[in-house]
Amino acid sequence: MSRDIAASADAPAFDRAVMDGFAVRSRDTADAPVVLRVVGFIPAGKTFCRRVGAGESARIATGAMMPPGADAVIKKEDVQVLADGRLRVSRRVRKGEDVYPRGRDYRKGAFLLRRAMLLNPARIALLGSLGYGSVEVFATPRVAFLTTGDEIIGPGRPPRSGQVYDATRPMILSGLSRMGVLCEDLGHVRDSAALLDRKVRQGLRYDMLVVTGGVSAGERDYVPRILEKNGVTCFFHKVLIRPGKPLWFGCRRGQLVFGLPGNPIASLVTFMLFVKPAIECLQGGGGTLSFLRGILSKDVYNESERLSFLPARLCCRKKGIGVTPLVFRGSADMYHVAGADCFFAARPYARLKKGTRISFFKI
Amino acid sequence: MSRDIAASADAPAFDRAVMDGFAVRSRDTADAPVVLRVVGFIPAGKTFCRRVGAGESARIATGAMMPPGADAVIKKEDVQVLADGRLRVSRRVRKGEDVYPRGRDYRKGAFLLRRAMLLNPARIALLGSLGYGSVEVFATPRVAFLTTGDEIIGPGRPPRSGQVYDATRPMILSGLSRMGVLCEDLGHVRDSAALLDRKVRQGLRYDMLVVTGGVSAGERDYVPRILEKNGVTCFFHKVLIRPGKPLWFGCRRGQLVFGLPGNPIASLVTFMLFVKPAIECLQGGGGTLSFLRGILSKDVYNESERLSFLPARLCCRKKGIGVTPLVFRGSADMYHVAGADCFFAARPYARLKKGTRISFFKI
Repeated sequence: MSRDIAASADAPAFDRAVMDGFAVRSRDTADAPVVLRVVGFIPAGKTFCRRVGAGESARIATGAMMPPGADAVIKKEDVQVLADGRLRVSRRVRKGEDVYPRGRDYRKGAFLLRRAMLLNPARIALLGSLGYGSVEVFATPRVAFLTTGDEIIGPGRPPRSGQVYDATRPMILSGLSRMGVLCEDLGHVRDSAALLDRKVRQGLRYDMLVVTGGVSAGERDYVPRILEKNGVTCFFHKVLIRPGKPLWFGCRRGQLVFGLPGNPIASLVTFMLFVKPAIECLQGGGGTLSFLRGILSKDVYNESERLSFLPARLCCRKKGIGVTPLVFRGSADMYHVAGADCFFAARPYARLKKGTRISFFKI
Repeated sequence: MSRDIAASADAPAFDRAVMDGFAVRSRDTADAPVVLRVVGFIPAGKTFCRRVGAGESARIATGAMMPPGADAVIKKEDVQVLADGRLRVSRRVRKGEDVYPRGRDYRKGAFLLRRAMLLNPARIALLGSLGYGSVEVFATPRVAFLTTGDEIIGPGRPPRSGQVYDATRPMILSGLSRMGVLCEDLGHVRDSAALLDRKVRQGLRYDMLVVTGGVSAGERDYVPRILEKNGVTCFFHKVLIRPGKPLWFGCRRGQLVFGLPGNPIASLVTFMLFVKPAIECLQGGGGTLSFLRGILSKDVYNESERLSFLPARLCCRKKGIGVTPLVFRGSADMYHVAGADCFFAARPYARLKKGTRISFFKI
């Protein structure tokens, strides 16, 4: 939302019955058992103008407005309607019993929702209850996306010798679309400093730029150089994780720029661990990484000197979520990862025993 | 996806260099140190037809195709290029070193993805690598949605006495749209058996029907009766949770029908706990509930005899995610829930101490 929302009225706007039952004057029940006359029925959404006087009551529905005079509801299971239509109340009813009083939730003028709060279903419910049919919001972040690499070709034509189809592009595009961001697809560029430079300048018109490939130490890995040349300050390059080590991250004013590794699984893992939370922050939420906890269903040895994220299948088990590790051949192994539901974290050289509780994130 | 996907070729389709370096014949390095001639450069995506003969090597980029004759790559950090352009290799290179061999991931004809698998970014990457620009998928579930209640009005007109604005409708619609389902909005019906009957028959043309309100034991709570009259078999009615006790669930052949409580927060919690996982199953995923684990940051007493879901704020703490309970006045309390990030679970009459690990789900 782009502005604070204040209450235009008390909520609830009237004393409201919480149960189906009878609206009564509590003091009438002080010497229970008593017998009261029933002077009418108040359905939800209707006004009842007649005052409930001494010795009187009114049948009332859940959510209905309390009639003047009455100050409590006794639920229908607790009373007896006599043959002559009168009501027998056999116990004392507390003042305010099963009544949700006017203004209990908030008073007119109270600040209910703050500028820049992320709208979720609960907040949308509150806005609905205030009578808003629409509200002004901040624009959703716009993310520019660019793939690089001479050997990469798109679908629709047979690969020449040495060429491979682009796996990263549809993967990242689907990841972005799942997050509801506006993605500006800048297409694919060959490993040429000049072409990359032009595309990067285009990409820096958006809130975030994501580039895949060309971030390692190879001589044709132009991405870091071209980004820095365009005023993007590098915050970090290379992370001690596997897969995903070549990750590059930088900023230019408020713009975030990620250079993801070109290998598709390294790209996927760094997208999930870094890009996704960053987008969630730009969307006004986030701040907590969505790791779930599960129980390892067989021994695992992490042979890497880096913190590793290993693909696994999930299943429901009595004690929680079972996590079954899969074969994993590294950052290009789409085949085994396609069979996985999640990646779980394993510390450098960790020997994790079956039954160990581990953290994972869903793909 | 609506069919199995088999591999149309080996993957990788060729022996591939894993590092920037030099393609060599491993046997030439058996008596290292040796000096080799460099006969060319092989960038990624290009074919190199010249055979690497005895005493020769070729400079090669990550991802490039191995030249005929060579059987290993030595990375550029491990060699020395002499003044005359020749290469000094000071250690023995293993056969297959830093080469990802043809067919290592899978062979032509192997089944890679199965019918009815949920497409996630990793599987979309695999499809991309096979050259698919599009695939046939099953239709996303279509969910019909209907709200009930005489006291409920939509936005755009001032409430008459006793009326309240609809909070549930925008809430559930936003929850559904966030899940990417096709929602058929059947609008709002008054508490009339005849009108409800007509709408329910309309709603039963979809994969799922969600109705809010009218599921308690009140005499105007027509929903269970009308659903059963239309051939929906009740699987359960009322659940020992708070909020959300009045929940109704039934099936008619493959169709799922949920009657959610009319109170907005009860509606929200049952949507998250029951409707959302059911939709995820229809979408081909799901099976594990997305509870996260956090650490309670103050003592809580659950005064209810039911398993309760209590609103809380989240924050990052050293040992994990901190969960700070908020004031909660029950199933209509949108105000406090609007300030929350999650609901955490508390067993009946549980006294939970600060520091206890608890399960929560995000809103």
